[in-house]
Amino acid sequence: TVSDCFHSNCTITVSSLSNSAAQKFTGGIGSKLCDLLPATNGDIKTMTFLQEVVNILLAYIVESFDRSTKVIDFHYPNELLQSNNWELSDEPETLDDILLSCRATLKYAIKTAHPRYFNQLSTGLDMVGLAADWLTSTANTNMFTYEVAPVFVLLEYVTLKKMREMIGWPERRGDGIFSPGGAISNMYAMLLARFKMFPEVKEKGMSSVPRLAAFTSEHSHFSIKKGAAALGIGTESVILIKADERYRNMQISKELKAISHVGFVPFFVSATAGTTVYGAFDPLIAIADICKKHGVWMHVDGAWGGSLLMSRKHRWKLNGVERADSVTWNPHKMMSVPLQCSALLVKEEGLMQKCNQMQACYLFQQDKHYDLSYDTGDKALQCGRHVDIFKLWLMWRAKGTIGFEAQIDKCLELSEYLYNKIKDREGYQMVFDGKPQHTNVCFWYLPPGIRYLEDKEEKMRRLHKVAPVIKARMMEYGTTMVSYQPQGDKVNFFRMVISNPAATFEDIDFLIEEIERLGQDL
Amino acid sequence: TVSDCFHSNCTITVSSLSNSAAQKFTGGIGSKLCDLLPATNGDIKTMTFLQEVVNILLAYIVESFDRSTKVIDFHYPNELLQSNNWELSDEPETLDDILLSCRATLKYAIKTAHPRYFNQLSTGLDMVGLAADWLTSTANTNMFTYEVAPVFVLLEYVTLKKMREMIGWPERRGDGIFSPGGAISNMYAMLLARFKMFPEVKEKGMSSVPRLAAFTSEHSHFSIKKGAAALGIGTESVILIKADERYRNMQISKELKAISHVGFVPFFVSATAGTTVYGAFDPLIAIADICKKHGVWMHVDGAWGGSLLMSRKHRWKLNGVERADSVTWNPHKMMSVPLQCSALLVKEEGLMQKCNQMQACYLFQQDKHYDLSYDTGDKALQCGRHVDIFKLWLMWRAKGTIGFEAQIDKCLELSEYLYNKIKDREGYQMVFDGKPQHTNVCFWYLPPGIRYLEDKEEKMRRLHKVAPVIKARMMEYGTTMVSYQPQGDKVNFFRMVISNPAATFEDIDFLIEEIERLGQDL
Repeated sequence: TVSDCFHSNCTITVSSLSNSAAQKFTGGIGSKLCDLLPATNGDIKTMTFLQEVVNILLAYIVESFDRSTKVIDFHYPNELLQSNNWELSDEPETLDDILLSCRATLKYAIKTAHPRYFNQLSTGLDMVGLAADWLTSTANTNMFTYEVAPVFVLLEYVTLKKMREMIGWPERRGDGIFSPGGAISNMYAMLLARFKMFPEVKEKGMSSVPRLAAFTSEHSHFSIKKGAAALGIGTESVILIKADERYRNMQISKELKAISHVGFVPFFVSATAGTTVYGAFDPLIAIADICKKHGVWMHVDGAWGGSLLMSRKHRWKLNGVERADSVTWNPHKMMSVPLQCSALLVKEEGLMQKCNQMQACYLFQQDKHYDLSYDTGDKALQCGRHVDIFKLWLMWRAKGTIGFEAQIDKCLELSEYLYNKIKDREGYQMVFDGKPQHTNVCFWYLPPGIRYLEDKEEKMRRLHKVAPVIKARMMEYGTTMVSYQPQGDKVNFFRMVISNPAATFEDIDFLIEEIERLGQDL
Repeated sequence: TVSDCFHSNCTITVSSLSNSAAQKFTGGIGSKLCDLLPATNGDIKTMTFLQEVVNILLAYIVESFDRSTKVIDFHYPNELLQSNNWELSDEPETLDDILLSCRATLKYAIKTAHPRYFNQLSTGLDMVGLAADWLTSTANTNMFTYEVAPVFVLLEYVTLKKMREMIGWPERRGDGIFSPGGAISNMYAMLLARFKMFPEVKEKGMSSVPRLAAFTSEHSHFSIKKGAAALGIGTESVILIKADERYRNMQISKELKAISHVGFVPFFVSATAGTTVYGAFDPLIAIADICKKHGVWMHVDGAWGGSLLMSRKHRWKLNGVERADSVTWNPHKMMSVPLQCSALLVKEEGLMQKCNQMQACYLFQQDKHYDLSYDTGDKALQCGRHVDIFKLWLMWRAKGTIGFEAQIDKCLELSEYLYNKIKDREGYQMVFDGKPQHTNVCFWYLPPGIRYLEDKEEKMRRLHKVAPVIKARMMEYGTTMVSYQPQGDKVNFFRMVISNPAATFEDIDFLIEEIERLGQDL
């Protein structure tokens, strides 16, 4: 049957409407899936259904910010699989079941907005950003052409220009794109660097090109290697530069020469502005000098640290970024824009287009009636591209640059507070000396039973197990979440990061108390 | 200042609340940005603000389905830039302005839910899908680990298994991932095929590998070439197979041998299930035989046509897909799942992990307390990955497979109706003979002034300009939108596609009337 109601036995009802929704819209009870739009006269029933979902979401939002609720109601995968019927079947469920599924999904979700959620570089939930993302979903379009996304294409243009201004490129000129995450942004940069040096690679592939070498710090993000593997460059061509005790890479020049001697052609240096674990900033001015001298593309991976450009107090850490050829900057991290929102900014205009365009005639018609420079889709590796711009743009309007600045400065102040609190505290040991450059505070907590062990090997062996156990207990209690990892020869340590605008000094105090409470018996 | 209110002169007010929102929540008037959560006691004011945004969205949704409204209120880029102040500045705007910005953004947006919007392969707006996307935004998390996305990771697992069942792989086994669009899904497939044949490419790059050759029909999607360029294979290594008059590729075997003779190693065949312009299905069984004989990876790009697997009436067009090594299938196209939702399905278990993993210790800790096989992030090229699964899963629950089937069958019925209506109609000429295989109906409309021209060259020259002018007029009137393009030696023709569940027979009639109304003077 091709009738509006595809299922003839359709008896789907909404019986769990909240009072407010039921009051607001009359025909609230008894609506079926096939009564919703595009059904004729589906307006009221659609609004009732969507309003009921919104009520569930609003309740979840309010709960998420409430410190007395759990960050997570943790269940092991097998338990979670059995907690509900999650399977898909031939027959439809009722709209009631759909609402129940929404509730169940949120029940077991991580409350990423919770003031004590510190687990990732992306935390928190901004209310204007969320509103913008709801609008984006409702507009449900694609970034490939001005024709289908006129406003969003313009807002991307406006926002990229503003971001280039903050980087400090002359006259805000250059190019850029919002991509699905920092790893892809970094891959774009590597792709552009290779194309810039060897444009024939686009048609002829790597067989037309000498063996290439890329350089990055040993503490850089794994996406640099992932990108090299994907682009056919190979992970062995990524030279990891040893970094000094503050995790800054200084030996690029030496390595560049050494690798050139064995026949590799250096083409790409990725400096990191804010490493993932330590939050360290590579010395961009020194790296820019080296790149200039050797004619190598300078990329700055500022996925994590790029947002410090918004802060008059902290932007000096990125001094030299204006000399980069490309910059990755993820507003979904330190600026708390909803996921995903990652930008690649490129200094040279037109290069992305030349590198990636394939001129598909069915999408980028050349005889349309408007200015085709706004059809930016052919710059991308993607064909369809999700609208990631509106949430950033709307938040920027709501806060202004000074609002982002205050939010970022506050997170850095909280991390300094944490650092000062634990650096000399009994039972704590910092992973690196000195004040953190970003909000990353890396430390070991040594429970009393380990603290005084004299056998160093035994001590390290036992210390290695402390963070995983405390973390597992945090998740089981649901009180807070923070990340841990080993690094090189260092056993498991906590990496605290603060990007959550909801966090306060009291939440930092709570974290420390909680680590001690959960770890003291270990 | 690090107080909750980052802007000391904060005088942001909500004065434009609708009556219903104002009634529902008391303190509706006079709230400021800094009163919203995470502010203390920010609950009510946050709900008021979000409710006001929802009211704007609900009104837009209802309007979108109303045939008496415009599909688009078209403005040229420069007009649109000047229609509003879209710039970003240091100072915040008021919450009032934020609501105005939401309204302005929607005013100039394309109504992709409009029953007469046929412009792209992705059209329509599903109410359950939309609700699911709002929930996804609210949950605001990342797909990299079970730790931060327990439910979504499980639902991806459940859904990929179901999709593999529909493909017909034994015991629903295999692998897969949701990626940011079909182009990236196709790129993944090519990456896997290369790694499968030459695993050393991951470390050593293309210098360790002979020159490769990929094969696809001349009507395949441009992402195959884009992928080859990015992966360092080169566009010249993509051999475009001539297709017969129904646009099916039949000469692969001959080309495979020819290219092997000149030293290229065939590694990848991308068969298309539903080409972008013609909607043609490559003969998958014949291609599977060739791939098997030559030991070449068989990929099926079913971004557009894959959804026909949901239809008992039409799935025969994909017979042989069960022999593929990988399949791209975009539920955001023919199944009307909100953008983006694209899956790559892979027959071999574990291959994606081996190909892409970098084992970053700060994300994929090996000593966590749960089953780590659910930490699927290292399979991906992305690090952070947007949650694209929930909207598909929730829609599948609401409709059941039979609901998707009915929706898809209806679109194909509408396209057959269009084909029958115009194939012998005065002034129309079909671009290819016979009933369309998918919903693509490709045709020229010849206005009376061109219809009887005897000079063929002059006729083609003028006909080439007809579709762009009619399209431009459609957009200026805002009545409907349909795509056009030239192809090979064929001048501009209309490509009608139907994926919009809101479309009816009357909308098809309207489209034809509108083309004639707007084009008769040309």
